[in-house]
Amino acid sequence: MEELLYEGKAKQLFQTEDPNILRVKYKDDATAFNGEKKARLTGKGELNNQIAAWFFQFLKDKGVPNHFIRMISPTEQLVKKVAIIPLEVVVRNIVAGSLAKRLGLEEGTSLRQPVVEFYYKNDDLGDPLINQDHIAVLELASEEQLHEMKTIALQVNELIRGQMDRLGITLVDFKLEFGIDAEGRVLLADEISPDTCRFWDQRTKERLDKDRFRRDLGQVIEAYEEILSRLGGKQGV
Amino acid sequence: MEELLYEGKAKQLFQTEDPNILRVKYKDDATAFNGEKKARLTGKGELNNQIAAWFFQFLKDKGVPNHFIRMISPTEQLVKKVAIIPLEVVVRNIVAGSLAKRLGLEEGTSLRQPVVEFYYKNDDLGDPLINQDHIAVLELASEEQLHEMKTIALQVNELIRGQMDRLGITLVDFKLEFGIDAEGRVLLADEISPDTCRFWDQRTKERLDKDRFRRDLGQVIEAYEEILSRLGGKQGV
Ligand SMILES: Nc1ncnc2c1ncn2[C@@H]1O[C@H](COP(=O)(O)OP(=O)(O)OP(=O)(O)O)[C@@H](O)[C@H]1O
Ligand SMILES: Nc1ncnc2c1ncn2[C@@H]1O[C@H](COP(=O)(O)OP(=O)(O)OP(=O)(O)O)[C@@H](O)[C@H]1O
Ligand SMILES: [Mg+2]
Ligand SMILES: [Mg+2]
Repeated sequence: MEELLYEGKAKQLFQTEDPNILRVKYKDDATAFNGEKKARLTGKGELNNQIAAWFFQFLKDKGVPNHFIRMISPTEQLVKKVAIIPLEVVVRNIVAGSLAKRLGLEEGTSLRQPVVEFYYKNDDLGDPLINQDHIAVLELASEEQLHEMKTIALQVNELIRGQMDRLGITLVDFKLEFGIDAEGRVLLADEISPDTCRFWDQRTKERLDKDRFRRDLGQVIEAYEEILSRLGGKQGV
Repeated sequence: MEELLYEGKAKQLFQTEDPNILRVKYKDDATAFNGEKKARLTGKGELNNQIAAWFFQFLKDKGVPNHFIRMISPTEQLVKKVAIIPLEVVVRNIVAGSLAKRLGLEEGTSLRQPVVEFYYKNDDLGDPLINQDHIAVLELASEEQLHEMKTIALQVNELIRGQMDRLGITLVDFKLEFGIDAEGRVLLADEISPDTCRFWDQRTKERLDKDRFRRDLGQVIEAYEEILSRLGGKQGV
């Protein structure tokens, strides 16, 4: 059996025979508010595996390198192993969630330009917002790496925003994680899915993302299915 | 009588006959935790007026322009009127206060380089930490003004840190405010005092600042007197 390297809230990581390749298994577990709220949502693992695979392949095709190699089962994909940089990189186009509280702006307010935020990936501290000087003193990333992450995050935003727009969905915000690969390069990693993005249906104004779970809006799986269906539906492996 | 333009928690601002000049009266009121904790500390107004005058004159002599014109009474000084930029600019050399909580570092930890933070000056929101993108979308300051504030803040840090060091006191951190003057320039304003700086005695390790009030350590006024006395004592007006 392959070694379970790490079990997170949404995914399991297994080492493969190739030291540079991991198998990621997307789970049905849903969590919110730093793990305080929990549930099992049957089918989420499969949906997020499919959706993440779609976005990563799309980005690769558009010239944004990332950790994705290929799907290998309904809930699993192979990825390049990286040393995760402990930052959550958030890009926002529209005010929602914590930004509404922080700046006192109403949810749904359009931002005049995309906002990039860096959060320190540290559950004990509640993933606090930090700035470039905090990142420097904690030695979480070099100035160059920081600049690269921000540049890639904004590229990802333009690409996914444009794509979702064509499908009648607004990309409100999303969270990315980056890592350092075997060659020492900054590589986009982790996951892109309705667990890590806010998607709003342009016609019905409905939320098609994890906010349905966070706010007990119901029909969580149906929303994730809607996203996958707009992207073209389930792919065989 | 001159018009009271604004009454804050620590100071009153009066319009003088000259539209570009304000009279600042330093009060004896002490507040902490966004106004939740309050007290009257007899003598604080006079001490902070003297200490702020000293620091502003020192900075002016070292080539850092600021709003200070001159002291005109034990508790009052004349300053150039500015349109305050609603940002609190914090510079830190050593971990204390909210940074200890945010980053999970112990109070007293030396930072490998000064950390500059921008807080949105907004009592209703609890003065949240924000980053350069938040400042841009809120249109609080231009990129150029932001860069200038950061540069001046780091200069002030080097100058005051060196000076206090010679007096046996460690400059742990401090908060600055900036404004736009009549000529449209960014000008250092507000106050520099034990209300807005953390000063630690290098020999006794005692706090000689507002933390004595925040944490009920007693001898608040005595600490402020110690700061003024190290700076050379009370000046006549
Ligand atoms: N290519 C990769 N190489 C190594 N680790 C990765 C890669 N992609 C993602 N990870 C890490 O896999 C872990 C599992 O993901 P999951 O989303 O379940 O974790 P989580 O519950 O969000 O917890 P965490 O706080 O660790 O992110 C995460 O820590 C993520 O940073
Ligand atoms: N040169 C100046 N011109 C105009 N306003 C100034 C100047 N210097 C300081 N101020 C402003 O004077 C006000 C009074 O100061 P004080 O410290 O009492 O306010 P405060 O209680 O801290 O409240 P707040 O800063 O939130 O308004 C502050 O709002 C400060 O920004
Ligand atoms: Mg995760
Ligand atoms: Mg003040």
